[in-house]
Amino acid sequence: MEQSRKEPVYPPPQAIHHELRNAENSAGHVMAKLHSMREINPHLAILDVGAGSGTISVTLAKAITDGHVTAIDLNPEILPRARAIAEISGINNIEFQQGDAYKLPFADETFDITYCHQMLTHLKAPQDALREMLRVTKPRGIVAAREGDLETECVWPELPGVLKFHKFAADMMSAAGGTPIGGRQLLPWALKAGVKRDQITVSYGTWSFSTPREKETWAQAMAERVRGGRLREGGLKSGLTTENDLEEMATDWEKWAQRDDASLAMMQGEVLIQK
Amino acid sequence: MEQSRKEPVYPPPQAIHHELRNAENSAGHVMAKLHSMREINPHLAILDVGAGSGTISVTLAKAITDGHVTAIDLNPEILPRARAIAEISGINNIEFQQGDAYKLPFADETFDITYCHQMLTHLKAPQDALREMLRVTKPRGIVAAREGDLETECVWPELPGVLKFHKFAADMMSAAGGTPIGGRQLLPWALKAGVKRDQITVSYGTWSFSTPREKETWAQAMAERVRGGRLREGGLKSGLTTENDLEEMATDWEKWAQRDDASLAMMQGEVLIQK
Repeated sequence: MEQSRKEPVYPPPQAIHHELRNAENSAGHVMAKLHSMREINPHLAILDVGAGSGTISVTLAKAITDGHVTAIDLNPEILPRARAIAEISGINNIEFQQGDAYKLPFADETFDITYCHQMLTHLKAPQDALREMLRVTKPRGIVAAREGDLETECVWPELPGVLKFHKFAADMMSAAGGTPIGGRQLLPWALKAGVKRDQITVSYGTWSFSTPREKETWAQAMAERVRGGRLREGGLKSGLTTENDLEEMATDWEKWAQRDDASLAMMQGEVLIQK
Repeated sequence: MEQSRKEPVYPPPQAIHHELRNAENSAGHVMAKLHSMREINPHLAILDVGAGSGTISVTLAKAITDGHVTAIDLNPEILPRARAIAEISGINNIEFQQGDAYKLPFADETFDITYCHQMLTHLKAPQDALREMLRVTKPRGIVAAREGDLETECVWPELPGVLKFHKFAADMMSAAGGTPIGGRQLLPWALKAGVKRDQITVSYGTWSFSTPREKETWAQAMAERVRGGRLREGGLKSGLTTENDLEEMATDWEKWAQRDDASLAMMQGEVLIQK
């Protein structure tokens, strides 16, 4: 990805693989509904909760040129990176701000579409965040979520360091209060947030890598995460991994990317809630 | 599903869930290519290998009204059922015959598209079947496969009998010489069959159930499989399960289908090989 000349624009290691996301590959279940809503009202207001570097938010903003996207993240350090990506993309109908999914800094019934990806699965009480997302959504608006289900990860070849990484990543998610089986729980979380079953459409999508370029990008990102950054620090501090294991993981991700027969896929749970 | 008045038309328990398949939900990765090939040649010849009850074959035949589908299965007992389904569907441009994927009863370069679903994963030497599929395919034709990857199955709620079923089904696949991680191995199998990497497009799809009707159909099929039919017989004979366990599986599938918060998904590996 190209980078702006303004600083700070370099993504932290934990953000690189998230920046592969866009509306097409990570919000596909929302787009048909978005397009039909845009026909009726071109001035849609969209909220992206836990937007990270904002690569999905920016592509959502491209899809509603007469509308507006608000993208929030709990971590204020990612905001300059997100703003740089929007600027590089030439997108103006977007704003980024710090915000907590449990206490969204918006009035009731503000947005037409409230969206999140790979956010609820990190929370101790995902149903509370969904309730907040519903609160800030207009009547007849939609709340949409897409969350990876790490336990469905399917990788070939099954190199030892790659399998070790998978277990380590799942353990870290659980240790931080999230869950590696989030994708399959979007429906129960929505029901716990007070939504009726007939308001909810469930689907499943995938997230996969098989071309040399996709594999290299993914493997480099994973290697960087275990050689530096939050995942490494947290893993060593908590005793969930060792320096030797981390190096084995990085090396095997690099070997994996070089293999002609390698691919990786993970399932993503999806819900579309009609308010 | 409606049934013809001719006998034998009732599916055996192991076929019921396979009859949920059609070209849309099980050959999506092939359809764009099929449509572009049909533009050039409306008289396409398609081979469906391991077609079972032929529900995918029939929908492929619908997509090429001026073409012809040949559907084969190793088990001759399923052929009357497949013919009945084609007849009910009003499809004439199709024929069903007995045939072995390892020794396809066709001359070299006979078909424009050679397809299989949930077939290679049951074989001891899937690369040999792929080599046969390539043999009977015309130059510039395509070989397409889609295979479930059972280990990616993602189910909620995680009822004990349902988890037990998952392990039992995987053990039975392995015991019969197949693999529960077939979906992720389509690429290595194609390479072993002698295909070059740049002739192969890899993708992943899903197979999921979340509406009351989908869940009931799936759960009933699974309950029937463990209360009667080949899976039950084989499981008891091999000692991989017990009567008590089988009854727990059936009961928990039925409970699962009744739950508002229940859903199930499994990833499917996909390859499209350009000959």
